[in-house]
Amino acid sequence: MDCIFCKIVEGAIPSKKVFENEHVVAFHDIQPAAPVHILIIPKKHISSMNDVESEDWYLLGEIHSAAQQIAREQGVAETGYRLINNCGPDSGQVVFHIHYHLLGGEKLGALNAR
Amino acid sequence: MDCIFCKIVEGAIPSKKVFENEHVVAFHDIQPAAPVHILIIPKKHISSMNDVESEDWYLLGEIHSAAQQIAREQGVAETGYRLINNCGPDSGQVVFHIHYHLLGGEKLGALNAR
Repeated sequence: MDCIFCKIVEGAIPSKKVFENEHVVAFHDIQPAAPVHILIIPKKHISSMNDVESEDWYLLGEIHSAAQQIAREQGVAETGYRLINNCGPDSGQVVFHIHYHLLGGEKLGALNAR
Repeated sequence: MDCIFCKIVEGAIPSKKVFENEHVVAFHDIQPAAPVHILIIPKKHISSMNDVESEDWYLLGEIHSAAQQIAREQGVAETGYRLINNCGPDSGQVVFHIHYHLLGGEKLGALNAR
């Protein structure tokens, strides 16, 4: 398994973690697109949204619960934040271990800048 | 309750629905930001991501399962798509009934255009 996010989960690659529990890890994006830009991933390797199965639904809950907590801790729960999942080529998904971007800390741009 | 998305759920306001089951409705965004732009909402009124509680986690699964099916039916499952949840002022959330944008059908822009 040559997955950079699995290596972050294992600690084999360093990251600036902001959250970790049994199921989920979250860390700062190394190329932030906003003042707050956190990546939230399940520890379980799932390639993309297309590969989420019903047995993984609790992980979606865990990810969103983590997002709520991270938004509070990063001071953007009330000012606002955006959660984004990219799936596949047109979306710009680069790492094929499912991840949610949490963006905030400024007025965010259009959903799809053209 | 004066919620436009609750009225869409009830059918009191028309929409171009693409998906409906016991828990979830999805319909075309009236101001599409991409060739495919679908809104996916739970029938239950939840104002925003901040208000999702653990008893609602199964709805996140239902929403994402709907997204997978809609992506297939809209022909973007393999070309790629983006799922976005906006929460609060900085995100641009306008309707305070939680909703996921599903965008696809072209190469999508930056996560946060500045």
